[in-house]
Amino acid sequence: MSTSDLIHIPAREGRGFSVRAGDRVRVIDPEGAQVADVFAFCIDDPFEYHSAEHTRVYVGRLFPGVGEQFVTNRRRPILTLEADDSPGVHDMLCAACDPTRYLGLGVEGWHASCQENLLGAMRQLGIIDRVEVPQPINLFMNIPVGEDAELGWLPAPTRPGDSTTLRAELDCYMVVSACPQDLVQINAGTPGPIDVEITRA
Amino acid sequence: MSTSDLIHIPAREGRGFSVRAGDRVRVIDPEGAQVADVFAFCIDDPFEYHSAEHTRVYVGRLFPGVGEQFVTNRRRPILTLEADDSPGVHDMLCAACDPTRYLGLGVEGWHASCQENLLGAMRQLGIIDRVEVPQPINLFMNIPVGEDAELGWLPAPTRPGDSTTLRAELDCYMVVSACPQDLVQINAGTPGPIDVEITRA
Repeated sequence: MSTSDLIHIPAREGRGFSVRAGDRVRVIDPEGAQVADVFAFCIDDPFEYHSAEHTRVYVGRLFPGVGEQFVTNRRRPILTLEADDSPGVHDMLCAACDPTRYLGLGVEGWHASCQENLLGAMRQLGIIDRVEVPQPINLFMNIPVGEDAELGWLPAPTRPGDSTTLRAELDCYMVVSACPQDLVQINAGTPGPIDVEITRA
Repeated sequence: MSTSDLIHIPAREGRGFSVRAGDRVRVIDPEGAQVADVFAFCIDDPFEYHSAEHTRVYVGRLFPGVGEQFVTNRRRPILTLEADDSPGVHDMLCAACDPTRYLGLGVEGWHASCQENLLGAMRQLGIIDRVEVPQPINLFMNIPVGEDAELGWLPAPTRPGDSTTLRAELDCYMVVSACPQDLVQINAGTPGPIDVEITRA
């Protein structure tokens, strides 16, 4: 019998958790138009983690389709995109936002960021050594690649309750950050919360 | 008065060197149809290195144009794309080839790879601690992004003598690898050499 946990991530915050191979992680946008940055690190060795550039080569596309897998920097499948109950618009091209990004956008003083959310969540999980900040899986993020390979920055097209389900293929630490970006319109100007439902295998 | 060094990189091999801010590095494809993987790490702290995902956000495009800059994982400009005397087709989406990639392509036994070339060159430079293997700047690599965000794997369109010139914005270790890929057609089936001309500021 499977059990499930629900984690509520308040707007602008992040949470980390451990999953075992076979566990399912449903990432839900409860209010709509909200990006969720997702990171996955192997428990056996956190220097092995989900890698966007290896995944692109593995699937031959900018983002996996349903049934396809995300792989690590050692090319091992770590997550499967099991189901997508969202418009299916996701990004794997843009770095996590960080303090320098907000400084560059003209913010004075502190601003929450996905990078800080990641590092804080890993600290809570006991990973205090140098943690790499990989390219996240930016669920629901709408970055069209146009002519001349230009990137667009559009609001997430998710409606309230849309979700994407990832299945773990390796035991891993996962971190989900409700992206705090409120200067670029990817969250339609108002960052919202994210819910995560973990179904244990 | 400026001085210059010429480094010849035999087919399938890599070389590392140090540059100071202001130095110019011209990467030349002497025989044509050859990909050069380029990496740059800060001398002050090699855990700061050129980052494709930060560069894409910085320039708002999949690859910088002439006059634009590549930035590090701390969003500091590290290289400028100063001149492009090539067809201007380059990639920053695909991970460096590595032993696992060749295993997946059916190779039995050892095969040269850009990852091994990077790690070997860094060792020669005295960087023996854990070296991150970042997404390379794949000069001359022809990976069109098609409909449905599919990636193509086409031969490098360079003619003999084509080159791209990068100017260092920070003191950095650079590694250039003459990509040994001979199973996928990016090097038109026959990996060739790469020349590097460094003009000291």
